[in-house]
Amino acid sequence: MAGSATSFVEDTLRLHRDQMASVLARYLPDREPRRWLYDLVATYPSRIGKGIRSGLCVAACRAFGGSTQEAMPSAAAIELLHNAFMVHDDVEDGSLSRRGLPTLHLQHGVALAVNAGDGLAVVGLTPLRENVKVIGSVMSERVLDEFQMLLHRTIEGQAIELGWRSENVMHLTPDDYLNMVLLKTCSYSTIFPLRIGALIGSWGSADLGALTRFGFHLGAAFQIRDDLLNLEGRTEKYGKEILGDLYEGKRSLMIIHLLSVVDDRERQWLNAFLSASRAERSDGQVRKTLEMMREHGSIEFARAFSQGVSAAAREAFNLAFEGLPASDDLRFIEELIPYMLDRDL
Amino acid sequence: MAGSATSFVEDTLRLHRDQMASVLARYLPDREPRRWLYDLVATYPSRIGKGIRSGLCVAACRAFGGSTQEAMPSAAAIELLHNAFMVHDDVEDGSLSRRGLPTLHLQHGVALAVNAGDGLAVVGLTPLRENVKVIGSVMSERVLDEFQMLLHRTIEGQAIELGWRSENVMHLTPDDYLNMVLLKTCSYSTIFPLRIGALIGSWGSADLGALTRFGFHLGAAFQIRDDLLNLEGRTEKYGKEILGDLYEGKRSLMIIHLLSVVDDRERQWLNAFLSASRAERSDGQVRKTLEMMREHGSIEFARAFSQGVSAAAREAFNLAFEGLPASDDLRFIEELIPYMLDRDL
Repeated sequence: MAGSATSFVEDTLRLHRDQMASVLARYLPDREPRRWLYDLVATYPSRIGKGIRSGLCVAACRAFGGSTQEAMPSAAAIELLHNAFMVHDDVEDGSLSRRGLPTLHLQHGVALAVNAGDGLAVVGLTPLRENVKVIGSVMSERVLDEFQMLLHRTIEGQAIELGWRSENVMHLTPDDYLNMVLLKTCSYSTIFPLRIGALIGSWGSADLGALTRFGFHLGAAFQIRDDLLNLEGRTEKYGKEILGDLYEGKRSLMIIHLLSVVDDRERQWLNAFLSASRAERSDGQVRKTLEMMREHGSIEFARAFSQGVSAAAREAFNLAFEGLPASDDLRFIEELIPYMLDRDL
Repeated sequence: MAGSATSFVEDTLRLHRDQMASVLARYLPDREPRRWLYDLVATYPSRIGKGIRSGLCVAACRAFGGSTQEAMPSAAAIELLHNAFMVHDDVEDGSLSRRGLPTLHLQHGVALAVNAGDGLAVVGLTPLRENVKVIGSVMSERVLDEFQMLLHRTIEGQAIELGWRSENVMHLTPDDYLNMVLLKTCSYSTIFPLRIGALIGSWGSADLGALTRFGFHLGAAFQIRDDLLNLEGRTEKYGKEILGDLYEGKRSLMIIHLLSVVDDRERQWLNAFLSASRAERSDGQVRKTLEMMREHGSIEFARAFSQGVSAAAREAFNLAFEGLPASDDLRFIEELIPYMLDRDL
C-alpha cells in the first residue's frame, strides 16, 4: 500500500513536471545573447527538478474548483523564481552540484551566474503579467500580493541562514531552525504555491491562514528530509553533493542538535570546524562530524522530529481542505505528507 | 555662462536627489532581519548618488505636462532597481568601492551581498505596484511593459560585457561598445527613465522612439565620461576606485581603441594583461596600460568620440521634445547634454 501511494505521488509529480517543462520552454527567451545569458538562464530549468512546487500550486487550484489553465502562469512564475533563487543560493553557499550536474557558477563563473540568476527572475515577471488575461486584474493583484510576500520571506530566510554561517552562530535551537525554514524553504516550496493555487481556485474564498499552517509543516518535513538526504542520500537521485551541507557549514537540524548535546571539548572542535571556510574543511573533518552526529543520535533526532512535524501536517491538512470533494489533486496533496518523510530525490 | 549652466544642472540634481532620498526611505523595510538583510539593502540607497536617473524620469514627466507625484513611484522603482543592479554589478566586477565607500560585498561578503541585491530588487516592486493607485491600471500596465524591457536589456548588456571579459574578447569595435552601452548603461540610466517619465506625463502620446534615440546618445556620453573619469577622476568626487576599470579588465572605449592601433608586440602584451585575473594585474601593468593609452591617443579618441555623440544627443533632443513649452525641466534635460561631457562626479 505504501508502495502504491508513493508511486501515485511520483506519477503525479512526473505529470506536473512534464507539463511545466513545456510551459517553461515558452517563457525562456530564444534570442541573443545566448552564449553569455539565455543559455545560462535555461540551464537549471532544463534540468529535471522535483515538480513539487508547481505541482502543489496547480493541485491546490484544482482541489478548490479552479482549472489548470488558471493556475499555470502563477505556477510557471513560481518555478522560474525558484530557479533564479537556486542559482544565487548556489553562489552564496559555494555549492558544487545541482540536479546532478555542476552548479551554474562552476560552469560559467560567479559573474555570469549571478547575472543569469537576475535574468531568470526577470523572465519570471512575464507569466505574472499574463495573469491579467487569465484570471483578471483583481485576482492578479491579489496573486501579486502573494508573490511579494513570497519573495520578501525567502530572502529574509536566506539572510538569516547566511548570517548564521558568516558569524558562526553556535547557540541555535530547533525553533530557530524552524523559523528560518518557515521563511526560506516553506515560503517558496509549499506555503505560497498552496496559497496562490487555493486563492485562484477558490476565487478568494479559501482560508489562506489554514493553508499557511499546512504548508509550514509540509515544508519543514520536506527540508528536514533534504538535510537527511544530504548526509545519507544517493548522489544519482539526490542531485546535490552528498555531505555538501557539512562542507558548507550549514546549520541543519542535525548540527543544531549535535551542538546542544556535545561536551565542551567536542564543542570547541565543532566551533573550529564551523568557523573555517569551505576550502579549509577536510574530508576527514566532515567524516568526523558525521560520525559525531551518529554517535550522539542527531540523525535519529531529526528523523523523530520530522515525524512529529508530519503528524502536525496531517492535522493541518484536514483543516485546510475541510469540506472539499475528493479528487486526485486532493489525494496528491495528502499523500505528499508521508512522501516527504521517505522521498529519496 | 558654462559655469552657471553647470550649477543649474547640479542644483537641479541636488533637488531631485534630496526628494528621492526621502521617498526611498519610505520604501526601505524597517524590520527584522536588519543585520543580515535590511541594513545591507539600505546601504547603497543611503550613499549619495548622482540623481540623474530619477531626475530624468521626473523631469521628463513634468516637461510633457505631468506632475511630480505621477512620476514618483516609477522614479523610486528606477532608483531601487538601479541600486540592486549596482550591488550585483560590483560583485560581478570584483569592484572595491562605490559612492566613495567599500562595496557591499567587501563589507559583508559575496553571499550576503548577492542576497541583499535580490532584496533591493524585491523592494523595487512595491512602488511599481503602487502605480495603480497613482496613474490607474492601464497606464501602470504600460509602465510595467517599460520596466520589463529595461530589466531585460540591462541584464543582456551586462552579460555581453561580462562575456567579453570572461572569454578575453580582443576584437571589438566602437560599434560593439556602443551596442553594449545601449543595453547596459543607457537602458537604466537614460532611455527608460526618459521614456517612462514621458509616457506618464504625456498620457501615452509622446513619441517614445524619439526619446530612445535621445536617451541613447545622452547615455553613451554619460558612459564614456564615466570611463574617462575612471582613468583621470578624483577619488573623492568620483566615488569609485580610480583605474578600477583597468584592474578589472573592462572593455572601455579607450581599451577598444588601443587594441585597434597597437603593434603586434604591444597587442600580445595587452592580451596577456587582459586575460589575467584581477589579482594578477600589477600596479605597474595598470600604469603601463594607461601610458600606452596616452601615447596612442586613446584618451583623446574617447573625448572626441563623446563630443560626436553629444552633438547627436543635441539633434535627438530637439526631435524628442519638439513643441513642448519651455520649462526648468526641459532646460535641465537639455543642459544635461554638455554636463555629461564635463561632469566630475
